[in-house]
Amino acid sequence: MFEKILIANRGEIAVRIIRACREMGIQTVAVCSEVDKDALHAQLADECVCIGSYKSKDSYLNIEKILSAAIATKADAIHPGFGFLSENSKFAKICNECNIEFIGPSVESMINMGNKSIARQTMIKAGVPVVPGTNEPLTDAYQGKKIADEIGYPVIVKAVSGGGGKGMREVRKSEDFVKLFETAKKETEIAFGDDQMYIEKFVENARHIEFQIIGDKFGNVLQLGERDCSIQRRHQKLVEETPSVVLKEEVRKKMGEAAIKAAKAAKYYSAGTIEFLLDKDGEHFYFMEMNTRIQVEHPVTEMVTGVDLIKEMIMVAAGEKLTMTQNDVKHSGCAIECRINAEDPDNHFIPCPGTVNELHFPGGNGIRVDSALFHGYKIPSCYDSMVAKIIVHGHDRKEAIEKMRSALGEVVIDGIKTNLDLQYEIINSNEFAKGNALEINRRLDDRG
Amino acid sequence: MFEKILIANRGEIAVRIIRACREMGIQTVAVCSEVDKDALHAQLADECVCIGSYKSKDSYLNIEKILSAAIATKADAIHPGFGFLSENSKFAKICNECNIEFIGPSVESMINMGNKSIARQTMIKAGVPVVPGTNEPLTDAYQGKKIADEIGYPVIVKAVSGGGGKGMREVRKSEDFVKLFETAKKETEIAFGDDQMYIEKFVENARHIEFQIIGDKFGNVLQLGERDCSIQRRHQKLVEETPSVVLKEEVRKKMGEAAIKAAKAAKYYSAGTIEFLLDKDGEHFYFMEMNTRIQVEHPVTEMVTGVDLIKEMIMVAAGEKLTMTQNDVKHSGCAIECRINAEDPDNHFIPCPGTVNELHFPGGNGIRVDSALFHGYKIPSCYDSMVAKIIVHGHDRKEAIEKMRSALGEVVIDGIKTNLDLQYEIINSNEFAKGNALEINRRLDDRG
Repeated sequence: MFEKILIANRGEIAVRIIRACREMGIQTVAVCSEVDKDALHAQLADECVCIGSYKSKDSYLNIEKILSAAIATKADAIHPGFGFLSENSKFAKICNECNIEFIGPSVESMINMGNKSIARQTMIKAGVPVVPGTNEPLTDAYQGKKIADEIGYPVIVKAVSGGGGKGMREVRKSEDFVKLFETAKKETEIAFGDDQMYIEKFVENARHIEFQIIGDKFGNVLQLGERDCSIQRRHQKLVEETPSVVLKEEVRKKMGEAAIKAAKAAKYYSAGTIEFLLDKDGEHFYFMEMNTRIQVEHPVTEMVTGVDLIKEMIMVAAGEKLTMTQNDVKHSGCAIECRINAEDPDNHFIPCPGTVNELHFPGGNGIRVDSALFHGYKIPSCYDSMVAKIIVHGHDRKEAIEKMRSALGEVVIDGIKTNLDLQYEIINSNEFAKGNALEINRRLDDRG
Repeated sequence: MFEKILIANRGEIAVRIIRACREMGIQTVAVCSEVDKDALHAQLADECVCIGSYKSKDSYLNIEKILSAAIATKADAIHPGFGFLSENSKFAKICNECNIEFIGPSVESMINMGNKSIARQTMIKAGVPVVPGTNEPLTDAYQGKKIADEIGYPVIVKAVSGGGGKGMREVRKSEDFVKLFETAKKETEIAFGDDQMYIEKFVENARHIEFQIIGDKFGNVLQLGERDCSIQRRHQKLVEETPSVVLKEEVRKKMGEAAIKAAKAAKYYSAGTIEFLLDKDGEHFYFMEMNTRIQVEHPVTEMVTGVDLIKEMIMVAAGEKLTMTQNDVKHSGCAIECRINAEDPDNHFIPCPGTVNELHFPGGNGIRVDSALFHGYKIPSCYDSMVAKIIVHGHDRKEAIEKMRSALGEVVIDGIKTNLDLQYEIINSNEFAKGNALEINRRLDDRG
């Protein structure tokens, strides 16, 4: 087992990892930026190295500085958490070259799953359903129309080099295709200097269902069930839960098998997530992407399975076998997570950094709080606005909802604005009780 | 189900009960004394009635005022928590007469189990092993000696009306009996105006093992496993855990069966605890007493079984059946609780009330905190010094110990003195790792 792990992250996930290490008797090294010297992760770790300015590229994204800190403190492994360098295969590669174990999957898995085109090809080859669409880039509108007609409308035309919605068009009818394709292509050329396009079926009103995967270096791969992450505001997940209310048992089984297939096809070890879109018919699902890291919402899976995903990641990285088999994985009850963000829902959700004057978190039976907040903490303005995760576990969804309502009602975070009231509204709504995530999302969009 | 429950208690157990009610959609009424107006339980409840001065007899022990508050707020049930009126059968009787359901066992069970002599007789009749001793009071030293010789030494001579160690003598040899009995009897007469004595085998180096019971009004009784509460300082429990390290599987089974027998003999419903002494041979065990209420250490049982004891108590009181059968009760992993007291272990454990200037509790995976503390809270001097319970759950005892060590290491309670460091020492000791509770107790005694 490792003697010392450097945590290349900050905030609640750094705290989460430090706690796991402490419980495993592993020494911890935190890295922090200059504004994070008093942050909880910096305080909790056995050692802390300040590696640079508030700018992420000078600190949490700076490979050289992080590796220097690891070498100087004689850390034998690095846990990247999520965000920052967690999906950076170059970082993982350099870690390994420096004889410091990267706590995550192999560099090859990271590269292959990070490239959407390779990932898609891999899944098709493995027999995992993907969103119908073009496998090769194209530039000819009429060739595109032929494909779109086959796929069936609506489709989305996307720029291969695209991002941020640029060069993207939704096409609902065959007769509109050529015109919209050409407009998108022009926009793409201007934006990205490249006119390669691809076409994908637009899965309308889809739910976002993801499966937690854990694998070891001996080829063992398990799935720990799904998380329903359909409640999102502008592609940012807000509430996550397991099990999903909309998943029929036979579809769950199929998706679980597909997730294992996908992970095996990616030769995956460590914790990872297979993200699927579930069609509104509740029957068809499509591989969307694989996240080759631990995720924000991992605690809901831990609450219902009892598996400590961070510890498993560490053990797998150290060359140990998984501590369980698929048959050992039992799901019990229902877990929900609400992300608490320092932001103002009444003012376009702008981030609201500041000093936490009063802080009170709920406790008691079935309540878990993952947070790096403390009384008097000054939330810096330069990082992600998520400051706490409230996670509850109930025997069933009804109890979990009641627990979450009760828990959110107890939280006090004064001095900054947060989305706490908004989360309370969501959890308390009829739509949430009915599992109508898409209606909740529409209302969130209406808020701006 | 009840619409509104009054909680006749304060501190963390009042908060615990309020949370359970909130989760069940039941309105809550807190009662508080004048010094508790800002207490967390007073803030969290839907309504709060200030019922009197800081003196318990004017507030938390005042039956009339509590019932007036219940009637005025139209509460249809009262949960007494632990301590205060929780084992007062007169209170339970009056509640019922006022058509307010007492959330606990029947008045008859409370009376019978509250009277040590009746309880002992009941257990003997039911075939539950009791500590060998006299079943009838006696005053004659030679008659006593005959009995003591039969029981085998060491024995304890106790005053029937006794308490606080007065009129109590340990007798280790037959030849010392008469002299020590007479001294004890004299002391008893002076202290209690009554010279009735009884004799009990002194179970040396016994472990304190208790079984959690839950029963409904339809005669269903389950046991939810044991709690080892052997670590005590002057009969005050400090650390509790489940499962017990010293309990062999066949003894656990026998004790569990005896606990069910005991509860059935007491015609018991609601949550209750059968306390046993386990002989140092690890084989023989003796009924000590039954606690007819929820206990401080109930969360360790909740952590390993997933059963919410407070909710079950409420449902049972409302006339519902238990939600599970004995076969449904599954135990998973190991849970430990540390009681955090506002006291000074370096100065004879004197209580240390005061204002909490800084407060930080641990969170994360498998960590539960039950507390009524908040930042800025002024702990009054007139109540029990326990201010928080840190409870952890691990896959096995090793992980639970590591979790507890890590969790205690994170706690910050500034402004008052607490036993936090002492608890850390205990959890971190070789004696605790080895399960050597009695050696820990000896060291605690040495501290004064």
